[in-house]
Amino acid sequence: MLNCAVIGATGYTGSELTRLLLAHRNVRITHLTTRQEKHIPLAEVLPSIPKDVDLRITPYDFEDVKKKADLVFLCLPHTEAMTTGDRFLQAGKIVIDLSADFRLKNPALYPEWYGVDHAFPARLRQAVYGLCEVNRKKIKKADLIANPGCYPTGPSLALWPLFKKKMIRTDFVIINAASGVTGAGKKLVAATQYCEANENYNAYKVNRHQHIPEIEQNCSEAAGKEVLITFIPHLLPVSRGILSTIYVEPSKKTLTGEAIRKVLEAVYSQDPFVRIKPAGQFPSLKDVRGTNFCDIGVSLDSRTGRLVILTAIDNLLKGASGQAVQNMNIRCGFPEGAGFV
Amino acid sequence: MLNCAVIGATGYTGSELTRLLLAHRNVRITHLTTRQEKHIPLAEVLPSIPKDVDLRITPYDFEDVKKKADLVFLCLPHTEAMTTGDRFLQAGKIVIDLSADFRLKNPALYPEWYGVDHAFPARLRQAVYGLCEVNRKKIKKADLIANPGCYPTGPSLALWPLFKKKMIRTDFVIINAASGVTGAGKKLVAATQYCEANENYNAYKVNRHQHIPEIEQNCSEAAGKEVLITFIPHLLPVSRGILSTIYVEPSKKTLTGEAIRKVLEAVYSQDPFVRIKPAGQFPSLKDVRGTNFCDIGVSLDSRTGRLVILTAIDNLLKGASGQAVQNMNIRCGFPEGAGFV
Amino acid sequence: MLNCAVIGATGYTGSELTRLLLAHRNVRITHLTTRQEKHIPLAEVLPSIPKDVDLRITPYDFEDVKKKADLVFLCLPHTEAMTTGDRFLQAGKIVIDLSADFRLKNPALYPEWYGVDHAFPARLRQAVYGLCEVNRKKIKKADLIANPGCYPTGPSLALWPLFKKKMIRTDFVIINAASGVTGAGKKLVAATQYCEANENYNAYKVNRHQHIPEIEQNCSEAAGKEVLITFIPHLLPVSRGILSTIYVEPSKKTLTGEAIRKVLEAVYSQDPFVRIKPAGQFPSLKDVRGTNFCDIGVSLDSRTGRLVILTAIDNLLKGASGQAVQNMNIRCGFPEGAGFV
Amino acid sequence: MLNCAVIGATGYTGSELTRLLLAHRNVRITHLTTRQEKHIPLAEVLPSIPKDVDLRITPYDFEDVKKKADLVFLCLPHTEAMTTGDRFLQAGKIVIDLSADFRLKNPALYPEWYGVDHAFPARLRQAVYGLCEVNRKKIKKADLIANPGCYPTGPSLALWPLFKKKMIRTDFVIINAASGVTGAGKKLVAATQYCEANENYNAYKVNRHQHIPEIEQNCSEAAGKEVLITFIPHLLPVSRGILSTIYVEPSKKTLTGEAIRKVLEAVYSQDPFVRIKPAGQFPSLKDVRGTNFCDIGVSLDSRTGRLVILTAIDNLLKGASGQAVQNMNIRCGFPEGAGFV
Repeated sequence: MLNCAVIGATGYTGSELTRLLLAHRNVRITHLTTRQEKHIPLAEVLPSIPKDVDLRITPYDFEDVKKKADLVFLCLPHTEAMTTGDRFLQAGKIVIDLSADFRLKNPALYPEWYGVDHAFPARLRQAVYGLCEVNRKKIKKADLIANPGCYPTGPSLALWPLFKKKMIRTDFVIINAASGVTGAGKKLVAATQYCEANENYNAYKVNRHQHIPEIEQNCSEAAGKEVLITFIPHLLPVSRGILSTIYVEPSKKTLTGEAIRKVLEAVYSQDPFVRIKPAGQFPSLKDVRGTNFCDIGVSLDSRTGRLVILTAIDNLLKGASGQAVQNMNIRCGFPEGAGFV
Repeated sequence: MLNCAVIGATGYTGSELTRLLLAHRNVRITHLTTRQEKHIPLAEVLPSIPKDVDLRITPYDFEDVKKKADLVFLCLPHTEAMTTGDRFLQAGKIVIDLSADFRLKNPALYPEWYGVDHAFPARLRQAVYGLCEVNRKKIKKADLIANPGCYPTGPSLALWPLFKKKMIRTDFVIINAASGVTGAGKKLVAATQYCEANENYNAYKVNRHQHIPEIEQNCSEAAGKEVLITFIPHLLPVSRGILSTIYVEPSKKTLTGEAIRKVLEAVYSQDPFVRIKPAGQFPSLKDVRGTNFCDIGVSLDSRTGRLVILTAIDNLLKGASGQAVQNMNIRCGFPEGAGFV
Repeated sequence: MLNCAVIGATGYTGSELTRLLLAHRNVRITHLTTRQEKHIPLAEVLPSIPKDVDLRITPYDFEDVKKKADLVFLCLPHTEAMTTGDRFLQAGKIVIDLSADFRLKNPALYPEWYGVDHAFPARLRQAVYGLCEVNRKKIKKADLIANPGCYPTGPSLALWPLFKKKMIRTDFVIINAASGVTGAGKKLVAATQYCEANENYNAYKVNRHQHIPEIEQNCSEAAGKEVLITFIPHLLPVSRGILSTIYVEPSKKTLTGEAIRKVLEAVYSQDPFVRIKPAGQFPSLKDVRGTNFCDIGVSLDSRTGRLVILTAIDNLLKGASGQAVQNMNIRCGFPEGAGFV
Repeated sequence: MLNCAVIGATGYTGSELTRLLLAHRNVRITHLTTRQEKHIPLAEVLPSIPKDVDLRITPYDFEDVKKKADLVFLCLPHTEAMTTGDRFLQAGKIVIDLSADFRLKNPALYPEWYGVDHAFPARLRQAVYGLCEVNRKKIKKADLIANPGCYPTGPSLALWPLFKKKMIRTDFVIINAASGVTGAGKKLVAATQYCEANENYNAYKVNRHQHIPEIEQNCSEAAGKEVLITFIPHLLPVSRGILSTIYVEPSKKTLTGEAIRKVLEAVYSQDPFVRIKPAGQFPSLKDVRGTNFCDIGVSLDSRTGRLVILTAIDNLLKGASGQAVQNMNIRCGFPEGAGFV
């Protein structure tokens, strides 16, 4: 049994992660913590837990977590995980961080996109980017796993093999993404009030979303050269799910859509959580809701020569807590699908 | 008072049009018709009408409509309006057709995109495309007005001036559009069942939606040369509204986003129903719901040089029945905003 | 032209009222005010207004409103309208108050249900309860009109005639009501966050909602004796609308459901905004959304002898701002339906 | 391993049941059948299943099911399960029927409420009503288990102990229930189209819903005398969940709400799937969504002496397939919570 702590268990990703860990046979939860000063019954944030589970979310106490946990999940706001992560690493713990604080390799991107200098830039070199299907080998040996962002996960899984195999142009990547409202977190803001989001749909953070450099880092690493992208996120009136509609161009006119689809199918044939749709079929949010799947569909338009790739994930699972558990499974030698029904 | 008939008043566009005409001071409704054989109280399809309005939707009778109506709105399914429209034109009526049957200039596009040969190709030359702000002068004298499609309206209004002024490249137009479920009409299909559409979002008719040639016709006419586009529609879990996220590239590197925004602002400054958002602000469905507005926002990404244009309309109003009334207003010399609150 | 001011124009009822007044031919808006210290373009809270309407919501200034307005609508939070209302009455203005501050006749109910003593109990005797169809004669001469609460409106319209005619028992009134989320107002609270309210439904303020004494006052006045009710409100995942399912018992076993339905039909036959559904048909939110209607349906269960009455309104219209305009129309001698499409 | 067949696996209850059985360690699925003539990949109706599950739904073949299955779940439309159930019973199988066909003890109720005579009235005497917490002992030995209806489950669990202990009056039971749209099944009807159900809420089958006699049977059995109820179902704009608001009266004035709440708490203290809310707290759909829980809350109004009881379930789980699995667990000696996460 692996002793795990969830630091920041009251938010959407923290409580979803707790739900998964409770169902995981190889895990014992040692701590669920909060920055609040009071004890919170777990059922208050996770009403679906069995009656006989009597867990509490308790005020964060580093020393106590250090004593009992082997692996620490950080579900803290961006820029707050840096210091906490460093401290647990110094204490010899495995750290899986669900924030953005260890995802970017270039420290200069933090002040530009997150508005803060990175407190521990050396940790950025140490961190392994936890895109499971791509970095599985590195994840197996990593002590600091930077769990990917919700928006980057789908497009990165779809584009990585295509850049790696030089099948698409590096100067033409447009990602039109739409996310459910849990993506905005639990804080009270007008945009996520029911009467504002219901029956509505709009773009936000146009050309300035902080996941842009993360997607570019992934594309660039796969392509072996710098890739700049256009990325426009939108807010959907649903609770969960991200659908990304990706516009790219094949590097050669002779490439068919089916050839590209088959490459993705081959690359991910052994992966339990990536599904390539048959030709002519495309992903939808309802197919992945409540699952750790990333569904991918492909269509080449013969009229324009452009390729459209659609990816769908549940933003709280494959886009956050599900992938975090998958990373734990890989790191700790559990079956990759353990803990998912 | 203008005598108007609505042919096909039981669907979403027909009943929304009826609602607008009832509130229009210059209009008398002579007929509301259905292809069904029974009389239907209007309140059954339009529960919001005043208690003392005692109108009925009645079985379609060409001769009777011919006798009493001066202007005929056709709210019929695609491919069914051709013959009906021709017949009313022969009878000397003004025809505003809300289907696609008179929108495309090239008859060869009908078998390709709509699966039928056009029965009256000569009418295609006669028809004026009813994109009000662009074709106002022609609409004033037209007897056959082809009301634009819901998806083409927003992008065409945004792109027309930019192509006209050669401000954007003709080989780079990608339109990512998302529509509410009324866009699919009232027929019973699985995809529009509540439990299928609710909490869902997906692309459909990928690279093969029938509005592609209509948008291309508009872009090409404005640009003075053939423009091919990429267009991917998506189904949103809302009842009404279309948001289009348009990716284009300026024709010159020196063009700023603000320069482009100001061009649109100037072009539409006198138009009651097109609103250009201030710099840094973008449209949303809730802002246009229940209105005849087309809202447009612009953002140039200095990193990639790409331009993102967002447009929002209510698909049943500016995207169908509202624009039809606006066309009637223009054609009949009423104030362009008459009939809208 | 009547000069009107809206005190508190940024909330849901204030902005909806402003929308109606803008479309009202007999009204000139002199002020739209806010408790904030800044000027707010009206389009920010009411995006549907025409482009050429250039109104601003401005910081509240009693003296200026006093100078220019003849009639003042108060859209202030409960307990804040008492003083403001008194001041405008002293200044000789007609006051239509959309809060609860002048609705209850018995001052002792304010500390019990609203947690405050009433500052001007004498005004409670002066105030006319603005349930239009019931109090029309008094409203015509009233200077202080207490606009009814959203929940009380439907049940009061349904039950008033039945109590008046002694057709139902006074010891058996159970109201199960469900409201859309605008009913909770615009303030940021967890319960009205999208991810909390979406796909959810629950009772709240069980047996302690502040509209209980208002409904009881109405029932008691109609019945001529004290009536206590059971009232349970629920939060619906919709933006607008209230459906009330009312369980009562006929006072005589011989009364049929159809007899009761016909009484309601007769009572409201001349009223533009109350519609009694035909036998076997029942109200729904979509039928009244965006309208000032109150729809009422009736069913007597022959097995149990119990009567079920269903009422539906749009909570922001007949349940608030629509009824406020209707009250103004009655008070000022405009046609009762003026200002509604 | 228990060999199980699901007869009718394409509907909402059939596919949800399949999902549960796939995750159940004690079960092997032998058949998933359809009345259609074609093979359907399970992933088409259940997109969340793991990639490596390669099950198909196949045309129903009695002989083949008979050969391989020990326990048969019937997910057939009402009135179609009678014959199929009888046949499997004759073949010696355990039958768990999710339709209403074996729920009512009095055969005369079938023509009255379901419009058909019962083909095998003797089976009604044999059938055990599968309300798990109430009939656990009988279920252990039953070969024909009539799984309760979605609406009856919550109110029956709440009222059973109170009738049993004579704590509430038998002549005063009013149940106001609201269900998500999956309750209406998958067939294409106008009322469950997205644009009809979205932003809507209404009562249906007013005083004539077929679950009335089932609830009355349960209440009467517990009370030891005939109980008639008032039951009004409503359609909620959510996919899943039923909230019932139950109005009853204590049999003695001296009974407190807390006393009644504590009785329920004691009765269900050992049951894994019934949760009694603490005083002052009430159930909501989101708390039970995706779970097999029935949550129950209680409030006594001291002003009127009336008792309000609220119950919430997921209609597809505790209201159908979840309770079916729970019944199987009880019948086959598995842990009662087996197969639920």
